Amino acid sequence: MGIRQSKLLTLLLLCTHLSAFGGRYTPDWKSLDARPLPDWYDEAKFGIFIHWGAFSVPAFGSEWFWWNWQGAKNPAYLLFMAKNYPPGFTYAEFAPQFNAQFFDPNEWAEILEASGAKYVVLTSKHHEGFTNWGSPTSWNWNSVDNGPHRDIVGELAMAVRKKRSLHYGLYHSLYEWFNPLYLNDKKSGFKTQGFVYYKVMPELYDLVTRYKPELIWSDGDWEAPDTYWNSTEFLAWLYNDSPVKDTVVVNDRWGAGCYCKHGGYYNCADKYTPSELLNHKWEKCNSVDTLSWGYRRNMRLSDLMDLPTIIKDFVNTVAFGGNYLLNIGPTADGMIPDVFEERLREIGAWLKVNGEAIYATKPWRVQTENGTVPVWYTSKNTTVYAIFLSNPMQDSFQLFSPITSEKTVVTLLGSPQALKWTPLHSSGLTVLLPDLPVTPAGAWSLKLDGVA
Amino acid sequence: MGIRQSKLLTLLLLCTHLSAFGGRYTPDWKSLDARPLPDWYDEAKFGIFIHWGAFSVPAFGSEWFWWNWQGAKNPAYLLFMAKNYPPGFTYAEFAPQFNAQFFDPNEWAEILEASGAKYVVLTSKHHEGFTNWGSPTSWNWNSVDNGPHRDIVGELAMAVRKKRSLHYGLYHSLYEWFNPLYLNDKKSGFKTQGFVYYKVMPELYDLVTRYKPELIWSDGDWEAPDTYWNSTEFLAWLYNDSPVKDTVVVNDRWGAGCYCKHGGYYNCADKYTPSELLNHKWEKCNSVDTLSWGYRRNMRLSDLMDLPTIIKDFVNTVAFGGNYLLNIGPTADGMIPDVFEERLREIGAWLKVNGEAIYATKPWRVQTENGTVPVWYTSKNTTVYAIFLSNPMQDSFQLFSPITSEKTVVTLLGSPQALKWTPLHSSGLTVLLPDLPVTPAGAWSLKLDGVA
Amino acid sequence: MGIRQSKLLTLLLLCTHLSAFGGRYTPDWKSLDARPLPDWYDEAKFGIFIHWGAFSVPAFGSEWFWWNWQGAKNPAYLLFMAKNYPPGFTYAEFAPQFNAQFFDPNEWAEILEASGAKYVVLTSKHHEGFTNWGSPTSWNWNSVDNGPHRDIVGELAMAVRKKRSLHYGLYHSLYEWFNPLYLNDKKSGFKTQGFVYYKVMPELYDLVTRYKPELIWSDGDWEAPDTYWNSTEFLAWLYNDSPVKDTVVVNDRWGAGCYCKHGGYYNCADKYTPSELLNHKWEKCNSVDTLSWGYRRNMRLSDLMDLPTIIKDFVNTVAFGGNYLLNIGPTADGMIPDVFEERLREIGAWLKVNGEAIYATKPWRVQTENGTVPVWYTSKNTTVYAIFLSNPMQDSFQLFSPITSEKTVVTLLGSPQALKWTPLHSSGLTVLLPDLPVTPAGAWSLKLDGVA
Amino acid sequence: MGIRQSKLLTLLLLCTHLSAFGGRYTPDWKSLDARPLPDWYDEAKFGIFIHWGAFSVPAFGSEWFWWNWQGAKNPAYLLFMAKNYPPGFTYAEFAPQFNAQFFDPNEWAEILEASGAKYVVLTSKHHEGFTNWGSPTSWNWNSVDNGPHRDIVGELAMAVRKKRSLHYGLYHSLYEWFNPLYLNDKKSGFKTQGFVYYKVMPELYDLVTRYKPELIWSDGDWEAPDTYWNSTEFLAWLYNDSPVKDTVVVNDRWGAGCYCKHGGYYNCADKYTPSELLNHKWEKCNSVDTLSWGYRRNMRLSDLMDLPTIIKDFVNTVAFGGNYLLNIGPTADGMIPDVFEERLREIGAWLKVNGEAIYATKPWRVQTENGTVPVWYTSKNTTVYAIFLSNPMQDSFQLFSPITSEKTVVTLLGSPQALKWTPLHSSGLTVLLPDLPVTPAGAWSLKLDGVA
Repeated sequence: MGIRQSKLLTLLLLCTHLSAFGGRYTPDWKSLDARPLPDWYDEAKFGIFIHWGAFSVPAFGSEWFWWNWQGAKNPAYLLFMAKNYPPGFTYAEFAPQFNAQFFDPNEWAEILEASGAKYVVLTSKHHEGFTNWGSPTSWNWNSVDNGPHRDIVGELAMAVRKKRSLHYGLYHSLYEWFNPLYLNDKKSGFKTQGFVYYKVMPELYDLVTRYKPELIWSDGDWEAPDTYWNSTEFLAWLYNDSPVKDTVVVNDRWGAGCYCKHGGYYNCADKYTPSELLNHKWEKCNSVDTLSWGYRRNMRLSDLMDLPTIIKDFVNTVAFGGNYLLNIGPTADGMIPDVFEERLREIGAWLKVNGEAIYATKPWRVQTENGTVPVWYTSKNTTVYAIFLSNPMQDSFQLFSPITSEKTVVTLLGSPQALKWTPLHSSGLTVLLPDLPVTPAGAWSLKLDGVA
Repeated sequence: MGIRQSKLLTLLLLCTHLSAFGGRYTPDWKSLDARPLPDWYDEAKFGIFIHWGAFSVPAFGSEWFWWNWQGAKNPAYLLFMAKNYPPGFTYAEFAPQFNAQFFDPNEWAEILEASGAKYVVLTSKHHEGFTNWGSPTSWNWNSVDNGPHRDIVGELAMAVRKKRSLHYGLYHSLYEWFNPLYLNDKKSGFKTQGFVYYKVMPELYDLVTRYKPELIWSDGDWEAPDTYWNSTEFLAWLYNDSPVKDTVVVNDRWGAGCYCKHGGYYNCADKYTPSELLNHKWEKCNSVDTLSWGYRRNMRLSDLMDLPTIIKDFVNTVAFGGNYLLNIGPTADGMIPDVFEERLREIGAWLKVNGEAIYATKPWRVQTENGTVPVWYTSKNTTVYAIFLSNPMQDSFQLFSPITSEKTVVTLLGSPQALKWTPLHSSGLTVLLPDLPVTPAGAWSLKLDGVA
Repeated sequence: MGIRQSKLLTLLLLCTHLSAFGGRYTPDWKSLDARPLPDWYDEAKFGIFIHWGAFSVPAFGSEWFWWNWQGAKNPAYLLFMAKNYPPGFTYAEFAPQFNAQFFDPNEWAEILEASGAKYVVLTSKHHEGFTNWGSPTSWNWNSVDNGPHRDIVGELAMAVRKKRSLHYGLYHSLYEWFNPLYLNDKKSGFKTQGFVYYKVMPELYDLVTRYKPELIWSDGDWEAPDTYWNSTEFLAWLYNDSPVKDTVVVNDRWGAGCYCKHGGYYNCADKYTPSELLNHKWEKCNSVDTLSWGYRRNMRLSDLMDLPTIIKDFVNTVAFGGNYLLNIGPTADGMIPDVFEERLREIGAWLKVNGEAIYATKPWRVQTENGTVPVWYTSKNTTVYAIFLSNPMQDSFQLFSPITSEKTVVTLLGSPQALKWTPLHSSGLTVLLPDLPVTPAGAWSLKLDGVA
Repeated sequence: MGIRQSKLLTLLLLCTHLSAFGGRYTPDWKSLDARPLPDWYDEAKFGIFIHWGAFSVPAFGSEWFWWNWQGAKNPAYLLFMAKNYPPGFTYAEFAPQFNAQFFDPNEWAEILEASGAKYVVLTSKHHEGFTNWGSPTSWNWNSVDNGPHRDIVGELAMAVRKKRSLHYGLYHSLYEWFNPLYLNDKKSGFKTQGFVYYKVMPELYDLVTRYKPELIWSDGDWEAPDTYWNSTEFLAWLYNDSPVKDTVVVNDRWGAGCYCKHGGYYNCADKYTPSELLNHKWEKCNSVDTLSWGYRRNMRLSDLMDLPTIIKDFVNTVAFGGNYLLNIGPTADGMIPDVFEERLREIGAWLKVNGEAIYATKPWRVQTENGTVPVWYTSKNTTVYAIFLSNPMQDSFQLFSPITSEKTVVTLLGSPQALKWTPLHSSGLTVLLPDLPVTPAGAWSLKLDGVA
């Protein structure tokens, strides 16, 4: 190619050499893993995940529609297509129906804020490869050239940032099931990297420089090693030189074998729930629709988590040191289904009273115990919170782990007055509960000041 | 026309003469209004209204979409069409998109039954004229020839009847906004009746003989007198000779001036709520979506009645002697939106405990009072029920109207044990409440046996 | 029904009684068949037939698409639908795609006039029942409510009438394959007539009074007798009282057994060609596309009549006293395919030179003979025309039937100078031909003045 | 990028170094221009050009639809979109309607062969960038992933090659109006080449190795120099190492300034017609539809070249040493419109008689003259052909340029017998013409053996 080099390749080569300078992250896991996680993330505790894409058009099965249909050849999907579309209909032909005609990013942001979440993670591109912004390397297969005719990533960024309480993050899939460039690399045993250099890297750099996300939720890494994905070089640039180098947070999906081991916080598997304290920040993602992350037109109420289930999952996650990223799938029209909006607002209503026991807390020395009813603990300095998820239907309430002193003060979050309590013999106490306010969440928090 | 007479006209003429025989209803209001209402209806108390049609395709504004767009020329509708459809697009062209691909009548029936409702009223044909069955006089403008390709009225009838607890009713609009036959009659000052004899009557007879509905919810009558609509002749046939003559119930919309005056039970205006006892059976219809009866793709949670609002409206209606017909709008795909399903199941859960205070009750001598908190009364023989819709947050609860005796027994529905109570001086009593179970409905019922 | 009678029925009853007055046609074939055919028709000789409707959307097979698909269940049609449309797609759903976006009636009229035709016959409604005007009794199944959103019958009427050379006619199908009203009458053995009185008659009266067609090309009569169709009553009104009573011409399809026997001119069977002179005016209709009257998207050139074939068919028809009605099928977009336009303009070019031998002629005592090459004769008073359809490739040309005299003058149409000729012994003559001008029609006319 | 190099880049680098070996073309114009044109091309004389792509869906204006609409913002196109599509509709959304449902490559090949053409040139990709084969670097914007769901380039290749008389060529546009990669390079003043290396080169190599075209009709080069396009490297590979190195022919559009100067044969401008002999092989491309190369749904007959016009253009081109590439535009359905089929078959019929005066001829010393009527000359060894395009309407026919001898023999192509002739004084002769056979082409050929 002689002296003619594309601007892009030059950029890439530059990036990989910058890390030689002092005081900078080098493109290897040892250096990158040593970076401290920016504070905002652990304090936030609660985020909303949004899966939106061309898969929201068939809105059947899950956001893995294309794969299940034409990769796995799942009979339910084959039948769905056979019954509802002409023979030969291709996935690409769904895109024009992704019309987003009611998409109002400010309305979304209002709902997201009302949920009490502190960050939002939107799919900028899922495994289908359709980009929710006008990516130059995804021509005619993006939300500006096709379907919505809008810069979804950008419009939501703007709206979310108007709400000062919210951080903006982007989900990004490294692999694309059916991209011929990817399949070509795969056939070579990932010895070639055409897909990475012509598609993945340009799009990641474009996303970061254009939209300045504070969180990158990487996915779709598992078929190839991080060396194929160029992950450490990208992260070194992200941490050293990108416009979000000081605040950005990433997860752990950067190549086969990376998850639960390298990167920023850990997601480990989807819906992963540890049963003991980890010594690394982690996040549990879960979806209101238990069967899908993307919208399904035929979801039934019984497929959804109800509010108490969500609250329990959330509280358990926070007690064990995790963040909770709760997913919803908007419709192809651009609406957040009312049943999701309802869940989010109800969580927000509960957090308005109980958020003190959640935000910016740390795990306590005990995470959970079976008192009068099951209880989860969180803490903030010398304050301990005991959250219980069922109405004990009686006035006296026992907690076994806190060690009280004379200075111990107990209150119910949401009520100003101190509650009467008496110590148990070795540790623990019995609290006299007031009438519990009715709440659809079915969860209340006791605040214990001055316990050990 | 000589001796050649269509079968239909012969039938119509026959019908109008049959009423000469003894022991039969004659086609006049005096005779028809005297018919006693079949018992099942008053005992049922609670029905579900379903608005489904071609209007579910634009699913914007309301089921009056066509009228608002091309009749009233409402700017919001004109703009919606201008933004989303090519110029010249007609309402008829929505029908092919009414695909009902997920419509499972047995699923619907399961949800409807779970709501605790005892009857269902489906739009067989709304003002748009699109019939949800294969009407021969609505060729290519019905759900079999176009859109769903299914006999919606028949399929739901079959599924609903498998549930023994449910009665099946049909909404039917007399007028059709844009039917040229109707417009022609209208232009004549309703002196001609081409529309009635070629469209309305054939369809009403077809509906009754094919599907045997136990309720006909007539609508769209107001522009013309009952004499134009041939209402009394039809009702005489319905009461004398139709296959549902013994069980069928109708409402009061049979011509200008009829409502609140003639027919079966009274609807009076939409969402009508009397503030004193009527001496005629009535029904209040209301819609979960306060802005529309048909599905709206862009409905927001704040547009919907929440559960406590519905329960309050329902309880107030029953206390004043009415039935409550609660409306939901399915999607063009054939799904009952989850948020509606949730409302219905929650009502059902509440009725499971509190239904005794609702079904087959009669209004009591007092309908409502402000005790410790507001209370509504119903009764069944010598039992009185007091339903309260907010948690008093205290143990002692006062009711002023019941006159107690030594035999008086008070219980909370859902709990077996008798509650302690003490009489107030002239009338009324103070009840010692137990801890109230948590319920999203926020409504509980006291049962008072042996009060006057 | 008492004194309430629809305007329409009143009209119908009136119509059937009017014929009692003197000097008027009575509703029986004896009277109606005696009406002389208005002169314009026989003089016109050449018309263009236009088949356009919802069938132009699938544009596959023929205008009998619906019947072949769902009536006959022809495998080719079933396969076409299975390959190209989703399961359950109905014929009604084609209509919205009948967009007519390039339909320019003035362009059509210019082409029609350029063809040399003197009349036009457009399908106002084919057997599918879709009306090309806003028929009030075909609501949502007509070209104004659906598809084109235009009054096709009216717009073409206006444009055709601007061309003074053209008469405007309408094709109208009595039966409609799948209209439930028709099927109902059919099931009764045509003892009921609901379809005729609610659909056929209103539409025929509407067509005549709104658009004043000078020709009604009736079709679809064959399953039922004329008494079912109310044909004689309609024709009596048409001839006595309609706005076109003096000029209107009809054909012979007015009930089973009518064709070739009653009505106006005879069509007998489609593409009927008599081999001897009839004593009644007749018309041959034929289609440029030999396989279909409606447009076919996949028609191949070899399916079409080429120009010489058309000219030969036309000349033969005129020589035997018939009119020639040549059919073309426009596209759903509203265009006359260029290959049809080319045929029409070439016929027009030929008629510009040879029209004198066609228009307003009468059959001669001999219709055809094999001279040097085959020849067809027409005549006008004492002038005889001999039309030959192949280049004899020699200068001397023999005709056997004309009896010459001294005054006989022979010319070639298109050339001013008289040709040399010599008589044959008993009858006939030898003409000395000039170089024949090149013409794609391959047909020339000799004019013989003063022969017997 | 270290040692990780994509297979593709490796391939490219290899290609550019191979030319160092002896007996090979080097990647510079001096070497490439020296390559002799493979014989088949000059002998072929007549080819058919086929413009087919997503532009065939709107089929309005021309194949430059996208540019005229959104590049030039031509009001006619803006209006067309405003009238017929919803606001915001994008060009990408046309692709799903490019259904090709009637595309039968064997039928096409039969028509193409019947035209007498010896080669075919199909648009593999026009300026819109939509590829008519499953290009891996045009994911979801190609005929396999979207629209036809077929490998158009491959299917036509197979069908055309079954006809031994036909060579298969591919049109390929270098630039793509709206490809962001291209626009990026353009913004850099064509200093970067991302578009060339990631899109253009991979696709050209893919086309050649997969489909082995014998002609590459390059286009869309004019905005950038050949150095940007990597043209000489590509051609060196094509001539040295590609599977078609011995037979392939290319044109002259390989960069700004190249046309009429470098490459294979010359096209110079579209529809270029020299008026004197060039010393380089050239080709004139012309389109039956004078207003467009792609299909237009609303083309009118008057927009088309008629047969005599085409024949004249063709004959003139051959007389001056050119090849004639006649264009047709198929419909989005996959049909060659009948009017185009008719033109092609008529040319074929004319060539069946007159092909001897066309195929494998060379220009004569005189190209054209005005004899009795205008005449064009071609030659083959000592035989000279004089083609005349209008019927002189007289028997004696004069040619001025041929120098006769005693051995001179004159015949009319299509007739066996020798014609009488007499020499004129210095040069030229008078031929006694027979009756000319009728032909819609209006063109005949005299063959003169033994003239100088």
